[in-house]
Amino acid sequence: MITKDKKILIVGLGLMGGSYACALTDAGYEVGAVTRSQSSIDFALKKGIIRHGTSCVSKEYVEQFDILVFSLYPHTFIKWLEQYQGFIKGGAMLTDVTGVKCSVVDKVQDMLRPDLEFIGAHPMCGKETSGVEFASADIFNGANYIVTPTSKNTEKAIEDCEEIGRILGCRNISRLSTAEHDEMIGFLSQLTHCIAVSLMNCKDSKNLVRFTGDSFRDLTRIAHINETMWSELFIMNKTELLRQMDLFAGQFEKMRNAIENEDVDTLKQMMITSTQRRDFFNK
Amino acid sequence: MITKDKKILIVGLGLMGGSYACALTDAGYEVGAVTRSQSSIDFALKKGIIRHGTSCVSKEYVEQFDILVFSLYPHTFIKWLEQYQGFIKGGAMLTDVTGVKCSVVDKVQDMLRPDLEFIGAHPMCGKETSGVEFASADIFNGANYIVTPTSKNTEKAIEDCEEIGRILGCRNISRLSTAEHDEMIGFLSQLTHCIAVSLMNCKDSKNLVRFTGDSFRDLTRIAHINETMWSELFIMNKTELLRQMDLFAGQFEKMRNAIENEDVDTLKQMMITSTQRRDFFNK
Repeated sequence: MITKDKKILIVGLGLMGGSYACALTDAGYEVGAVTRSQSSIDFALKKGIIRHGTSCVSKEYVEQFDILVFSLYPHTFIKWLEQYQGFIKGGAMLTDVTGVKCSVVDKVQDMLRPDLEFIGAHPMCGKETSGVEFASADIFNGANYIVTPTSKNTEKAIEDCEEIGRILGCRNISRLSTAEHDEMIGFLSQLTHCIAVSLMNCKDSKNLVRFTGDSFRDLTRIAHINETMWSELFIMNKTELLRQMDLFAGQFEKMRNAIENEDVDTLKQMMITSTQRRDFFNK
Repeated sequence: MITKDKKILIVGLGLMGGSYACALTDAGYEVGAVTRSQSSIDFALKKGIIRHGTSCVSKEYVEQFDILVFSLYPHTFIKWLEQYQGFIKGGAMLTDVTGVKCSVVDKVQDMLRPDLEFIGAHPMCGKETSGVEFASADIFNGANYIVTPTSKNTEKAIEDCEEIGRILGCRNISRLSTAEHDEMIGFLSQLTHCIAVSLMNCKDSKNLVRFTGDSFRDLTRIAHINETMWSELFIMNKTELLRQMDLFAGQFEKMRNAIENEDVDTLKQMMITSTQRRDFFNK
């Protein structure tokens, strides 16, 4: 139970951090923020989605908070902790929003002061835009929220971390190991982005726009992508992502060979399987 | 100009043929149908989307029509013509709805009686269901309609074929050579279906449903597929489809290698290209 007297700090006030700020302020918590750009703080203050905030990290400011939500690129997150974890109040709970878990969670657990507790979380949502200007509590509506505890975590902190997901308005709150999370995200999210980007790189397809129907549009919607964030996420989940990519490449090759050899039985069987499986994913 | 006294025959009263019947009857034409199943004829008569129809092909019935729309699987279409083209009135115009063109159009032109004229057409629309029960003129709303004339066609017949697209309510009416059509459809439609089916074949993903967001759903929507029709279409466009599949596999492999080698520059460049190109496809 996260009582309303708990003060929450958002570290990194972009699209996701800003959306946390919206939802947590709406829920009645005192929310502060530290972020690199003063204009993001000014914007968030003007919109009333934070109570206060600063672009200069100081012990005086940071030590007042009970819960810290890190909404930074993975490498920046680790660096921030290395530099500033001495500022954090003992007993505070730390969580994050990062889309890969094994490499981040282990590193953080290894370096963290023993009187602080970190639980990785991943709200599975986003937008094709970035920046606090686009922040909105709506992005959590119906989203999945995954908590990735390790043996270092207490049940109390895990439950608090899950409660944050409920306060945000997420639909499914799940617990996964970091390895299960990274396999799942490698397949469902990262592999699909690799496919969309590769497809869009095939040809200068501008002249095809007038013939394009929903199939191609659906498969490439996520090809509009933030290259800095996603290239970092791909490489941080490299082992698992390569495994998922090879799995897909194998099936694609199987289909290619079936077409080349006019092996109608294999083709049909793959289509029957895909049709049956896809039905489970209808909303 | 297709005057209202022209009588139009739909050959093959499934989802697509039935939808033609809906739109052409709405437009005031006398529409008849021949199809294998009497229950499809009965249904269409009851719904008022055809004036008359039969499940027994006869000279007496077929010879009254000025325009014939073939809405059959490619092989069945060729077989139907071999068996029954003697029944068709001299001077009649024939068109079709087939999703591949080189193999179909050339075969039909080669075998067709010299006093008949065939122009291939492809209305780029459909549904994930089949059968006349799901037919609706709505499927043409905003769809692209492509006409693939050859040197054997007259300008008059080409224009009439284009006019059918306008009567149906299609948005963009284009002319392409059969080769241009098959390259375009191989890339935009067939390759995307191959990708979706392959992705869905990767693993028994039922346990992943609760984590699935829009990315995976978008990429696999078209994995629900009619295996009889699509395996036939893939093989009939084999040369072009394999070329498009290899193009995609090359880009996918390039991305895979960039991830393995942590080649961030290549990764970012591919993402920048995909983002720029995708913007042209926003509706």
